[in-house]
This record gives sequence, structure tokens and C-alpha cells, in this order.
Amino acid sequence: MPIELPLLPMLLIILLAAGVGRLFSKWFGQSVILGELVFGAILGSFVAFSFEGGISHEPLFSVIEISDPETVFHLADIGILFLLFSIGLDLDLERFKELALPAGEVAVSGVILPFALGYGVAILFGFSPLVGSFLGASLVATSVGISASLLREAGELQTRLGTLIMGSAVADDVLGIIIMSVLFSFATTGSLPLIHTVLLVVLAVLFFVIPLSIGTKALRSISERVALGRENLLIVGLVILFFFSFVAEKIELAPLTGAFVAGLVLGQTHFAKTLQNSVSLIGGSFFVPFFFTTMGMKFDLHAFASVSTFAIVLIVLGIVGKVVGCTLGAKISNFTNWESLSTGLAMVPRAEVALVVGSFGFKHGILEADVLSAIIAVVIVTSLFTPPLLWRILKGERRAVPA
Amino acid sequence: MPIELPLLPMLLIILLAAGVGRLFSKWFGQSVILGELVFGAILGSFVAFSFEGGISHEPLFSVIEISDPETVFHLADIGILFLLFSIGLDLDLERFKELALPAGEVAVSGVILPFALGYGVAILFGFSPLVGSFLGASLVATSVGISASLLREAGELQTRLGTLIMGSAVADDVLGIIIMSVLFSFATTGSLPLIHTVLLVVLAVLFFVIPLSIGTKALRSISERVALGRENLLIVGLVILFFFSFVAEKIELAPLTGAFVAGLVLGQTHFAKTLQNSVSLIGGSFFVPFFFTTMGMKFDLHAFASVSTFAIVLIVLGIVGKVVGCTLGAKISNFTNWESLSTGLAMVPRAEVALVVGSFGFKHGILEADVLSAIIAVVIVTSLFTPPLLWRILKGERRAVPA
Repeated sequence: MPIELPLLPMLLIILLAAGVGRLFSKWFGQSVILGELVFGAILGSFVAFSFEGGISHEPLFSVIEISDPETVFHLADIGILFLLFSIGLDLDLERFKELALPAGEVAVSGVILPFALGYGVAILFGFSPLVGSFLGASLVATSVGISASLLREAGELQTRLGTLIMGSAVADDVLGIIIMSVLFSFATTGSLPLIHTVLLVVLAVLFFVIPLSIGTKALRSISERVALGRENLLIVGLVILFFFSFVAEKIELAPLTGAFVAGLVLGQTHFAKTLQNSVSLIGGSFFVPFFFTTMGMKFDLHAFASVSTFAIVLIVLGIVGKVVGCTLGAKISNFTNWESLSTGLAMVPRAEVALVVGSFGFKHGILEADVLSAIIAVVIVTSLFTPPLLWRILKGERRAVPA
Repeated sequence: MPIELPLLPMLLIILLAAGVGRLFSKWFGQSVILGELVFGAILGSFVAFSFEGGISHEPLFSVIEISDPETVFHLADIGILFLLFSIGLDLDLERFKELALPAGEVAVSGVILPFALGYGVAILFGFSPLVGSFLGASLVATSVGISASLLREAGELQTRLGTLIMGSAVADDVLGIIIMSVLFSFATTGSLPLIHTVLLVVLAVLFFVIPLSIGTKALRSISERVALGRENLLIVGLVILFFFSFVAEKIELAPLTGAFVAGLVLGQTHFAKTLQNSVSLIGGSFFVPFFFTTMGMKFDLHAFASVSTFAIVLIVLGIVGKVVGCTLGAKISNFTNWESLSTGLAMVPRAEVALVVGSFGFKHGILEADVLSAIIAVVIVTSLFTPPLLWRILKGERRAVPA
């Protein structure tokens, strides 16, 4: 029988794993995210729990059971909001606007190819077109958290490359969520909701355009008239963060997209530096390590060990589709070979959207358990093996071109 | 039917209430805690939920229902840990040790008198000795969070007065928890657990003595050899915080006592200043306002409006007992009249322990619903009306004696 642990010891164990993971990363010259993911996975092989969508996590050794998994994963959800908020605060908005078009191209070609490959392989393996669509959709969206953290750690967040990757990653999240929402409607009502889709696209566009035009101007002029202490400024910032995340969720975008836009908008006020400093501290030392470590905990080593031929093919196509699609997208927009390949690689990790699509399909009887395991295997491999590769490429470049 | 709100909008609303409360406090020259409590209470009159011990909160207007109250109150629980940790970091340990004896005197006389008064009034109103013991126990422990925050805001935390109050407040929490634990054993087994009580007292003493002697020395010498960045330092600090809180809970002390000891110990390392700076930011702008605002939310205005004669007597005795008991205790230890009275007043707020004792007694059929309401009324009145009074006294003194 596993020991049931309430919140306090879980907080202790998870932060301890994060801390040890960071220490190992430093020793081996790796990114801290890899350490947090790996030590999260090690921890996860002792911890039983069930998480979103009713998928339960079967550890290798069932030693610990979390008595309150909701709170633990909610803290992780807050972590990804902090991360995207702080990334938004850090980005150069002018550069972001300049690169909106190429980022859109990278995102679109990085969405079409993986979707087509996922769909195609499903048909080849004898699945129905509906299962194919779900598999395609699960390969569409990059997990923006991993790449964003890596870029910041490598000092590439404010460069042309970093801005392009962030723009593309956020754009393909939006595309992924729209595709998912359309598939959900189709799966539940049986018809393609054209008006709904158009509405979603319009709302998504407005959600970026309005805050980044009117919103930044208004907040910038308010920020010039108000003086706020460090604590009160952070409270105001967090209220705005949660407000944007809430609105994003309401118009069927992901809350993390809202967090990113909130960061972009507040990044234009003259509070930006102080706020960024506070947000990166509170996020970076509690919520964000919490996010990555619990993400690591979700890795199901059982699923990974019992991986099928189909899963291996899906993993390979998931990686190839993103790398080729995004590299081509970047090349078309006249980025260098190195920049294009880095973009392709940075877009490989999948996580949240893939798991949501998979668990929705599973719950509604569209996907079988083995297909779901294959999707989970894609998440494990892409999340765990992209960081060291991308890290090497980003650090290699920095060493080659001294600042 | 109330709208059911998940975590994200609740985070938004609660932080918004906290922010507005702080703004109003600033306008009216009050402490920020009062603003957070009051706006929490206003918010609470629209929000239905049930909290620890199964007591459900009946709002005046049932507009909102929290769909996940556990996570909300868990965040608040983390808030009180952050608060006590940061208070411990701020305190002057040498002064704390010097004042241990007078603090103990204040705590003991501030525990005996309220317990006796609570017991006596219960007997006078015709309740059984067991009910009397529970009522007495509910009046014993000061809510250390409110007074500690007020002291810090008034710049009195590191003075002789602030150190005395903190020492007494922590000591009476420990005494309150020991009394509670003995009563629990008695209520469930029917006999007075002498060995258990002695063991508890010994463990409580060791829990302070070992960390503050061996612990500080070890950590101080380690801290001289290690260099840590701001983020990693905070992670290490939080791991130590959660470790001490966990151990405190395991030996039947309150987790917040553990948080306080963790702060005291780390306060002696040369990391103390950087760590305190980070902890007060992350706590002060998210977790701690969250704690005070949700504490305000718990105030049941129904219970307050329908207050009985018994409740009024209990409130008066609860206030008088603490003020007289603690003022006398401080006078005996040769503190000035102003210091003694401030100590007495600072010790008035009751919250966590009172609610735990009340809800335990209620769940086990020892306390009736009206007695529980009376205890809740004591919590409301003492928590809500102490801050402005104490604030005026502390600020008045500061104005009278320029630094």
C-alpha cells in the first residue's frame, strides 16, 4: 500500500527534486529545465496519482500516493502562467510585431506538416479518419514553456531568433487550440461548425490586436502617472495576469496565451523592469520549477517501456514534421540555416495540448488506450530529449560568436 | 443558483479584493491587513464555500460558489507559512533568546486567564465541564499572523516590544496546541494522556532548542562556504521552510511554528538579507494577501448578525482575558506600561486554533451549533477590531518618540 501524502510533504518533495535537478544540470552543463524534468520523472516513478482528463499515472514503484493531486497540479498550472507572463514581459514588442508575419509562416507550415503526417500514419495503420484527425491535432502544438525557458536561459530570448521562436510557438498554440475546438465540436455534434470556427479565429486575432494597440497605450500612460512600491506593483501585475488568462480561457484560447499577452502589454510600461524582476523571482524559484518537476512526474515510464511500433513511427513523424515544417517556414522568411534549424528544433516539444487532445479523445471513446499511450510517448520523448539538443545548439552558437 | 467559479477567476477576484483593500488602507492611514480582511469579508458575503472541519460558509448573497475551495485555502495555508518564515528571518535571534523568559511569562498568564474565563462562563451558562474546557481552549491561542504583520508594518518587529510579542504569540500557540491535543485525546479516549502530554512538551522544547543551537551553527558554517544565486537560494530556503513545517506537523505542533523556526535559523546565515528580501516579496505580494483576504472571506456575517448574549459575553471575556493576562505578564517582567498594554492588545486576535478547536468539538458532538457560532464571533471581532486599535497605538508611539 502506498503512503498517502498531503500537500505539505508533496511541496517539500517536489521542490527538493527541483533543487537537486538544478544542481545536477549545473554540474553537467545542461539547462535547469532538463534537470527539473528528469528529477521530476524519477520522483514520478514512485508517486501514484490521477491527473487531468482522468488519466491515471502508474508509477514503477507505488510508494507514495498524493492525497490532494488537484492542488499540486493547480500550482503547476499557475507556474506555466507565471512563466509565459515573464516571457511576455521580457520580449521586445517592436521586434515581435516585425516578426509577426514570418512567425505566422513558421507556425502554419509547422502545423500543416505534423497534422498531415499524423493523419496519414493513422490511415496507413488502418485507423478511421476521425482518429487520424485527433492524432494529427495532438502533434500540432508546441509546448511553449520548455522552449521559452531554454531560450531565456541561453540568453536568446530577446534576439531575432528567440522572438521568432516565441511568436511561432504562441501562434501554433492558438492554431492548435482552434483545431482542437473544431474537432471537439465535430466529435460531439457530428457536423463541422463553420461559424464557430470563424468566430474563434476572429476572437483570437482581436485578443492580440486590441491589447497590443489600445491596451499598451492606455497602460503606458497610466504607468507614467502612478508610483507603486515593489509589492503593490506585483499585486497589480498579477491581477492583470489573471485577468488576461481568464479572458483567454473564456474565448476558448488557452489561459497561457492570455498570460503571454498580459506580459507583452505590461512590458511596454515603465514598470516593466521592476515587475519582470519580481515575476521572474517568484515564478523562477517556486511556481516554474514546480511546473517542470510535476511535468516530469507525469512521464509514465510504463507507457514508455511498452512502446509499440505505431508509437515509434508517431514519435519519429512528430519530430520530423515539426523540424522540417518549421525549418522550411523560417527559410522561406530568409532566416539563416542555423536560425531555421534552431527554430525547427525549438518547436519539437509537445505537452499540454497533446495530452488534452489525447485525453478528450480517450474519454469520448474515439481513441483506444494504446493510441493514447502513443501520444503520451510522443510527449515524453519530445519534451525530454529536445532540451539537451537545443541547449547544445544554442550554447554552441554563443560560443562561436562572442558577443 | 450561484455561479460556480474555478480557480483562475477566484485567484483574480481574491487578489483584486486584496489590492483594493490595500489601496483603501493607504487612503485611510490604516494597516494593509485591515484592508485585506475587510475587503475579504465583503467578497465573502457573496461567496459560498465550505472550509476545514466541514463548517460551511453561508454568504449574505449567494452569488458565487468556489468549485475548488481546497486549492484556494491551501494557497492561504502556504501564505501563513511564508508570513511566519519571513517574520522568523526578520527577528533578532539574540534578542529573542534574551526575551524567552518574559515571553514565556506573558504567554502563560495570557493562556491561564482566558482558559479560566472561558471555562467559567461555560459553567455559569450551564454547560458541562467538557464543553467548558473546549471553550477555554478556543480562547487560548493568539493568531500570530495578524499581530506579526502589524508589527512589521509599524516598524516594531525588531524592537524589544516586537520581539516580546512574537515570542509570546508563538509560545501561546504552542501551549494552545498542546492543550488542544490533550483535549482531543481526552474527548476520544476518555482519559487524560499524561505520558503523551509530557512527550509533546519535551518535543516542543527540543523543536526550538536543537535548531536554534546546533542547527544555526551548522547552517551558518555551510552558508559561509556556498555561493547561491537569488533564485536557487530561494529554492533552498523554501525546501528548508517546508521541511521544518512538515516536522512541526509530525510532532503535533502547528506547521506555522515550524515555518517560524526555519526563519529564525536561516536568519543567522549570511544569506539572511537576500533571502528575506525574496521571501517578503513572494509572500507579501501573493501568498500573504491571499491568506488575509481569504481569512476575511471566512467571516460569517450571518453568525455575526445573529449573535447571542452568550457570544457577547464570550467575546468580552476573550478580549479582557488576553489583554489583562498578557499585560500583567509583561508588567511582571518589568516592561513599561505602554509596552505591556501593547503586548496585551497585540495578543487579542484569535483565529486558526480557535476555529480548529471549535470545529473539532462540533464534529464530535461536544459543541452545539450556537456555541460554535459564538467561537466564530470571537474570531470575527478579535481579528477585525484589533488591527485598527493596535495600529493606532503603535503609530502613536512612533510619532511621540522620533527615531
